[in-house]
Amino acid sequence: MFMGASTKQGYEIAHKSREIVRSLIGDKTALLSPEEKSIVERIVHSTADVEYADLTIMTSDFVLESVKSLKNEQEILTDINMVRAGINKYSGSVNCYISHPKVIKLAKENEITRAAAAMQYAAENDFEGIVVIGNAPTALYKIMELVEEGMMDVKSVIGVPVGFVGAADSKESIKKTNIPSLITSGPKGGTPVAVAAINSLIGISKKGIE
Amino acid sequence: MFMGASTKQGYEIAHKSREIVRSLIGDKTALLSPEEKSIVERIVHSTADVEYADLTIMTSDFVLESVKSLKNEQEILTDINMVRAGINKYSGSVNCYISHPKVIKLAKENEITRAAAAMQYAAENDFEGIVVIGNAPTALYKIMELVEEGMMDVKSVIGVPVGFVGAADSKESIKKTNIPSLITSGPKGGTPVAVAAINSLIGISKKGIE
Repeated sequence: MFMGASTKQGYEIAHKSREIVRSLIGDKTALLSPEEKSIVERIVHSTADVEYADLTIMTSDFVLESVKSLKNEQEILTDINMVRAGINKYSGSVNCYISHPKVIKLAKENEITRAAAAMQYAAENDFEGIVVIGNAPTALYKIMELVEEGMMDVKSVIGVPVGFVGAADSKESIKKTNIPSLITSGPKGGTPVAVAAINSLIGISKKGIE
Repeated sequence: MFMGASTKQGYEIAHKSREIVRSLIGDKTALLSPEEKSIVERIVHSTADVEYADLTIMTSDFVLESVKSLKNEQEILTDINMVRAGINKYSGSVNCYISHPKVIKLAKENEITRAAAAMQYAAENDFEGIVVIGNAPTALYKIMELVEEGMMDVKSVIGVPVGFVGAADSKESIKKTNIPSLITSGPKGGTPVAVAAINSLIGISKKGIE
């Protein structure tokens, strides 16, 4: 198994791609730990966008706290189903509540987005683990609010919402909290970035940190 | 309903984002039809990456053939589950066979990727409709081969595989066929691009072409 490939041909493509990525961004990742380097390489591999080597920012405790949570098979919570669909090698549970009837009701009652309501729903149902937000800035803000209030046990956050409205600001805000986090500066980010980061961490948690 | 938003707050974000996108890429989409413009705008909205206004290329029959197929509620076939998870407003069926036991067997026997085997499986099961490839160049090559051999009835293809190995070449190859297509030039592309394009087409098929 290497970067999701499950056939010989798939493996060869993934391997060659990783070599190309290294040649393209090697100078930019030189100061990162082997694990951080591996995460950034996988993001660039998944997006074919070298700019992510500059945009991806992790707090110094992000890898350690994330791997600890994954080794304990704690929950992974995603903002949208597309992100959940990309996570398929984890032995713990991976949940997305955006289409849950109670979440839809909660969103309407409180006039918040369904993505934000889904975070609240998870908090109310004893969530403990890693939050992966690939799309909705409103979900990222809700997480910060819930953690601030002591209502949610978030071990780390992959916060890479995408878009021209709110996304960049939401990511700057999470940097100011104490939550271990990976973000992408500016408007860019999205599902493939989120999925690459969490799948890379799952791989690291199986191999162990160097 | 506007670009997947289902709450007041979600709608407002989507609307404001679309205005920003128009201001950023308006000069580059000036020569497109209203439908083509709408597709490109949605791709840029979903990726927050204005470069897609330059990279996205559609054949002149792409919108018409795609909308015709969607109106007839023909099948949508995706290469990976992540792409399928992003398509949720279609009245016809949306399928992905990459995890089907017969596909896994077919891939092993023929030493091809599971994504390519999934295309073959669909062809053998009377597929008729639109193929949406967000990740695997090998799936795009397989489609071309099957159409060439008269083995698969593909009305149009969204071919936006991503990556440094094979993706760009596979997309250049499909341009040389007669299959109505949307591609992104170069290594970039991926799930959000594929999902934005097909969801935009689904929206257009409900409203009708201007």
